[in-house]
Amino acid sequence: MEIYDVIVIGGGCAGASAGMYSARFNMSTLVFAEQPGGLITTTHLVENYPGIKKITGPDMGQVFMEHAMESGAKFEFSRVNTIEKVEHEGKPVFKLEAGGKEFFAWTVTLATGTKHKHLGVPGEEEYANKGVSYCALCDAAFFKDKTCAIVGGGDSAAIEANILSQHCGKVYVLVRKDFMRAEPVNQDRIEKDPKVEIKYMTEIESIEGDGEKVTHVKLKDGSDLELDGVFMAIGHDPQNELAKQIGAEVNERGDVIINREAETNVPGFYAAGDITDAKFKQAIIGAAEGVYASVMSYNYLQELHG
Amino acid sequence: MEIYDVIVIGGGCAGASAGMYSARFNMSTLVFAEQPGGLITTTHLVENYPGIKKITGPDMGQVFMEHAMESGAKFEFSRVNTIEKVEHEGKPVFKLEAGGKEFFAWTVTLATGTKHKHLGVPGEEEYANKGVSYCALCDAAFFKDKTCAIVGGGDSAAIEANILSQHCGKVYVLVRKDFMRAEPVNQDRIEKDPKVEIKYMTEIESIEGDGEKVTHVKLKDGSDLELDGVFMAIGHDPQNELAKQIGAEVNERGDVIINREAETNVPGFYAAGDITDAKFKQAIIGAAEGVYASVMSYNYLQELHG
Repeated sequence: MEIYDVIVIGGGCAGASAGMYSARFNMSTLVFAEQPGGLITTTHLVENYPGIKKITGPDMGQVFMEHAMESGAKFEFSRVNTIEKVEHEGKPVFKLEAGGKEFFAWTVTLATGTKHKHLGVPGEEEYANKGVSYCALCDAAFFKDKTCAIVGGGDSAAIEANILSQHCGKVYVLVRKDFMRAEPVNQDRIEKDPKVEIKYMTEIESIEGDGEKVTHVKLKDGSDLELDGVFMAIGHDPQNELAKQIGAEVNERGDVIINREAETNVPGFYAAGDITDAKFKQAIIGAAEGVYASVMSYNYLQELHG
Repeated sequence: MEIYDVIVIGGGCAGASAGMYSARFNMSTLVFAEQPGGLITTTHLVENYPGIKKITGPDMGQVFMEHAMESGAKFEFSRVNTIEKVEHEGKPVFKLEAGGKEFFAWTVTLATGTKHKHLGVPGEEEYANKGVSYCALCDAAFFKDKTCAIVGGGDSAAIEANILSQHCGKVYVLVRKDFMRAEPVNQDRIEKDPKVEIKYMTEIESIEGDGEKVTHVKLKDGSDLELDGVFMAIGHDPQNELAKQIGAEVNERGDVIINREAETNVPGFYAAGDITDAKFKQAIIGAAEGVYASVMSYNYLQELHG
């Protein structure tokens, strides 16, 4: 029975940082990277990670993982389904199940991040990747000169409308309320863009298509809007299922509550990155939390094993 | 009278990160970098900053400052001597003096880091840079085939003894106690190195020379030890004078107390990097604190100016 010193769940910036540091501490380290590189890989260009002036999102995800691998962390590219605390020779150990196999670790760092929120209307699942998308950056180029809608009223919606406008012939922004909460610079840009039309007080009733691809959406006012693509920019859901299984506290948003050193309320169980209750979710914050998780794991192991 | 949105005091990783992020928030930002690049520039190679696999310390200091400059932060390469809180049109503003000039800012981020501790024995100041050094990495090459001592019993002392041994003919490690607190791998290395001799229970009484350079040290047991260089590795002092002037709380080590978002007890006054009470002082932690300081400055300004 192999027991890792550290298992990190998540292969984004926070998880890879935790893996890199843990391996450099000479702790046996396994990183589960179901989504290699994490959410940053859906970002076009990153210019605000201190010390790296400019890098594409995919390259950034890649370099973080390589940094961890070259430091000695092992990687598994599968999903962890369950976690529980068991005992080994009188000491608490975490037991995980992934891909039908069991894994054991003295400490676990959760860095599962967030997932794009779904709208929850008829047609959304049926037409996923057939016109329905959650990443303008990833998919905008497939809609050259087409008509698309972006759903949302926040800064992401404005930014993604700008991205879509570079490819599409026409872009609707469908905003549920009678205002947007975008940064002024991004709001200005879409308001001045002749290709972009913002429709306030507008909600989708259902997404319709010909079975192969989206053709139009039905709006709640009863009208139809013809379009080829529907992009969602309505927020993110924290991936906190494993935190709940192990009894780690989450806040009202579902974010895992940690202290300044990345400790949760469960001894030996840490969290880092977008899954945490950090007030400001950025790669640099998640990376630092990952490093704190490694240090605290190291201290925990020193105490556990004397 | 020009009032900056943000003045950052310190041009190391933490200060430059705060400057970069603040400028990207469109806040007018001035960074005082008395020691451009900060303490990391005295490090040979950095391999544990997440996302940068390998970089020299000087290059790392440089790229962080460039990142801030290219984002729009202004730099002054002088020392801030005083800070006080004054009023401007009924609002609190920080007034700083540097190089005989006055500077004003709505918010200040302190990132002054730490300085190498001095031993405080006769001859130490007189022979500074004439045989007395606080940075083995910087100065070891000047002592090719010479005899040198490193003073200290911690991990830094062991690491720096290794560095000296690559250049010097003979290296003494002068340890005050009867044991060292070095990482086992570094301790092993110096114990196995025929050039290195560890002298426990050994303290320097005074540093002696011929007026031009160090020739020997007098030890507290009355004996002399002939050598060409004395390297200090006895810790760091937090540069907290400005924190004390403005009334920011420090802990028993002199580190400035901040919360998870880099706030001190003084509204509008933040701290980041090695000057803070972080449990683990690393570039990545300081960079994240600098980013938090920027975000909190932005929020503070929003509230101050309505």
